[in-house]
Amino acid sequence: MQTIGDEYYMELALQMAERAQGQTGINPVVGAVVVKDGAVVGLGAHLKRGTPHAEVHALRMAGPLAEGSTVYVTLEPCSHYGMTPPCAERLIEDKVARVVVATEDPNPQVAGRGIGLLRQNGIEVTTGVLRDRAVALNRKFIKYITTGLPYVTIKTASTLDGKIATKTGDSKWISNEASREIVHTMRHRHQGIMVGSGTVLADDPQLTTRLAVPGLDPVRIIVDSTLRVPVASRVLSDGAAPTLVLTTEMADRAKMAVLAERGIEVIPCGAGPHVDLQLALQRLGEREISSVLVEGGGRLNGSLLEKRLVDEIVLFFAPKLIGGGEAPGSFIFSGYEKMSEAVTLTSVEVETIGDNVCIQGRPVWPEKEQADIQGSTEA
Amino acid sequence: MQTIGDEYYMELALQMAERAQGQTGINPVVGAVVVKDGAVVGLGAHLKRGTPHAEVHALRMAGPLAEGSTVYVTLEPCSHYGMTPPCAERLIEDKVARVVVATEDPNPQVAGRGIGLLRQNGIEVTTGVLRDRAVALNRKFIKYITTGLPYVTIKTASTLDGKIATKTGDSKWISNEASREIVHTMRHRHQGIMVGSGTVLADDPQLTTRLAVPGLDPVRIIVDSTLRVPVASRVLSDGAAPTLVLTTEMADRAKMAVLAERGIEVIPCGAGPHVDLQLALQRLGEREISSVLVEGGGRLNGSLLEKRLVDEIVLFFAPKLIGGGEAPGSFIFSGYEKMSEAVTLTSVEVETIGDNVCIQGRPVWPEKEQADIQGSTEA
Repeated sequence: MQTIGDEYYMELALQMAERAQGQTGINPVVGAVVVKDGAVVGLGAHLKRGTPHAEVHALRMAGPLAEGSTVYVTLEPCSHYGMTPPCAERLIEDKVARVVVATEDPNPQVAGRGIGLLRQNGIEVTTGVLRDRAVALNRKFIKYITTGLPYVTIKTASTLDGKIATKTGDSKWISNEASREIVHTMRHRHQGIMVGSGTVLADDPQLTTRLAVPGLDPVRIIVDSTLRVPVASRVLSDGAAPTLVLTTEMADRAKMAVLAERGIEVIPCGAGPHVDLQLALQRLGEREISSVLVEGGGRLNGSLLEKRLVDEIVLFFAPKLIGGGEAPGSFIFSGYEKMSEAVTLTSVEVETIGDNVCIQGRPVWPEKEQADIQGSTEA
Repeated sequence: MQTIGDEYYMELALQMAERAQGQTGINPVVGAVVVKDGAVVGLGAHLKRGTPHAEVHALRMAGPLAEGSTVYVTLEPCSHYGMTPPCAERLIEDKVARVVVATEDPNPQVAGRGIGLLRQNGIEVTTGVLRDRAVALNRKFIKYITTGLPYVTIKTASTLDGKIATKTGDSKWISNEASREIVHTMRHRHQGIMVGSGTVLADDPQLTTRLAVPGLDPVRIIVDSTLRVPVASRVLSDGAAPTLVLTTEMADRAKMAVLAERGIEVIPCGAGPHVDLQLALQRLGEREISSVLVEGGGRLNGSLLEKRLVDEIVLFFAPKLIGGGEAPGSFIFSGYEKMSEAVTLTSVEVETIGDNVCIQGRPVWPEKEQADIQGSTEA
C-alpha cells in the first residue's frame, strides 16, 4: 500500500488527467485534487477545450471547504485569460493554503507566472511532485505549444523479419486482436491519423476509432502527392470523420475542386513532386492538430524518419516470419551506411501483448544538426 | 519460500543438469539428488560422455545411506549397457526405496524399460515431476536420439526494421555487449556453430566461445558450396577449434585437398550447385554433432527456414532503425504470398537485455506436409 503524502494525492490527479487524453484538443490534460483536514474534498480534470480547467471543477466540488485546503494539480495553474479566467486567481479567491504542482506550464503565456502569482498572494507552493510522469503525460501538448508542430507518433505492425505485408500485399492480419485494440486506443488519443496514398489504395481503410465503447475519431490525413486516391475510397466518401488531403502545387486543380466540393480540405505542401512533410506538419499545426498518429506505409514512415520529423515510435511485432525481398518493410528509405548513423530509440518500453511484443521509444538521431536536413518528400 | 516436497528436490536436480548443458556431447544432461531421513545425502550430475551418470555420482556420495533413500533423477535411469553399466541395476543393488523421475528417456534403448526394471524389483517409482522443464532441458538430446539429426537453433541480431547490417555491410555492433555474452553462452551449449561463406568473407569471424571464464568451443561449420572461403580466413587457419566445411560434389577437388591437408574435413552434400542442407544435417548427425547454432547470414537463415530445418529461433533486437532496401535482412528467402502461410513462433519468450529485446520461440509451419518440401539448397 502506498503511504499517504504529496505523491499519494498527485497520483490521483495524474490518473484523472491520463483518462482524459484525446479529448482536450490542443489543450493539455490536467487533473486536480483538493484535500482538507486529511480527506479528499474536491476532484476535477480538464475535459474539453473551452470548458473549465481541472482546478475550477475541483474547487467547485469542494465549495466552502476549499478555504485553507491543499490543492494538487498536475500542471501549473494558468495566469492568463484564455477561453476561461485564470485559475491562479480562482485559487487565491478561494483562499487555499497550499498548492502542489507536478510541473511548470511550458506555455510561454504561463511559464512560472501562475506559480509566482500564488506565492505573491501568500499561498505556499511546492513543485516537482511526480514531475516526470506529468511531463510524459503532456508530451504532445508540450511539443505543440513550444513549436507549433504536431507531435508525431509512428505505429507499425510487422513480422519478426520487419515486414508489414507479404510480397503480394497481404497484411490481414499481422498483429493480434489485443494489439489492434491498443492501436484504436492510440487513435482516440491523437487528433490526426496519417497514411500515405499507397495504404489507401492497398487497403481502403476506414481510419476510424473502433472499440468496445465509443471513442473519438481523429481527423484523417492522406498524404497524396498526385491526388491518385479515388474519390470512392472510404476515407474520401464515407463522411465518418473529417478528412484532409496533403498534396503538392503540382496536383491537378480539377481533382482538387472535386474534393473541395465534398468538404475535403486539400492542402498543397510545397512545389512537388513530393509532399514537403516539414511544411505539411506546419500546415496541420496551423489547423490546431497537435498530434498525429502515422499508420504507414513503410515509405511514409521512412520519409518521416529520414527527415527527423518523428517524436515517438510504437512497433508491434507478431511472432511470424514471412520473407520475400519485395515484401514491404516497416521503414522504407535509402538507409544509413554505418551502424553509428542508425536512429536509436531511447526511453524504450517493452510490453508483451499475448503473443505479440510492443516495443516503443523516442527516436534520437546521431548528430543533432537538424539544420542540415533538407525539405521533406513523400510519394 | 518453496515448500518441501518432490518438486523441491527435483528442482535441485534440474539445476545441476542445467549447468552441465554443452558438456555432455550427444548425451542428455541429467541431475540426481539422494534424500534420506529428511535430508540431502547425495548429489550428482552427468558431466561428460563416457563418465558416470548422475545417479551413480549421487549414490557414491550417499554411500551406505543410499539404502532406503529416495532418489530424484531428471531422466529415467538407463537399463542398458552403454559406455557405463545400467543405472537401474545400481539403484536396485543399493536398495533405494523410491525413485522419482521427471521424464521418461526418449532413447529407444531405454524408453520405459528402466522404470519397469525398478518396479519389478520392488522400488516405488513416481514419474512426471517437473516433466515439462526436464523435457525442455533435453530438447536437443531428444531430437537427436529420435531422428539422428542435430537440433538447429538460429540466432540473429537485427535492428527493429529487421536488418542485420547496413547497406554497406557494417554490422559492428548491432546488439549490445550483454546480448553478445548470451550468444557466447549459447555457443558453449551447442556442439556446432554454422555460418554461410558470405559471413566468413564479410566478417572473418573466429566463431569461438569467449566469456569472462573459459567455455567450450563448438565445431565450426562453414556452408560453402563453391569453396570460396580463403584458406587464410581465421576459421580455416587459426586452429582455435575443429572446423568442417560443407560443400557440394561440384566443388574443386584441388581446393578440397588443400583443406584436408590442413586437417579440415570437407563434406560434399549433394550434387550442387547448392549445399543440400537436409543432407548436411544428416552428415553432421553421423559425426555425433547433436546441436548446431546457426549464426547467419540472412541467406542461410532463410534457406533453413524455408526448408523447415529449424527447431528454435532466438532473435536479438537492438532499438535501432537503419533502413536501406539493399541492407540485408535476417531471413532472406523468396517469401510467402499470404499471411496465413507465415512461419509462426510458438512457446514465445521475451526478455529485455538492457536496451535490447530477445524474442525466442519454436517455428511452426502452417501445413505439416514435410514430405512436400524438396531437398535443401544454400549458396
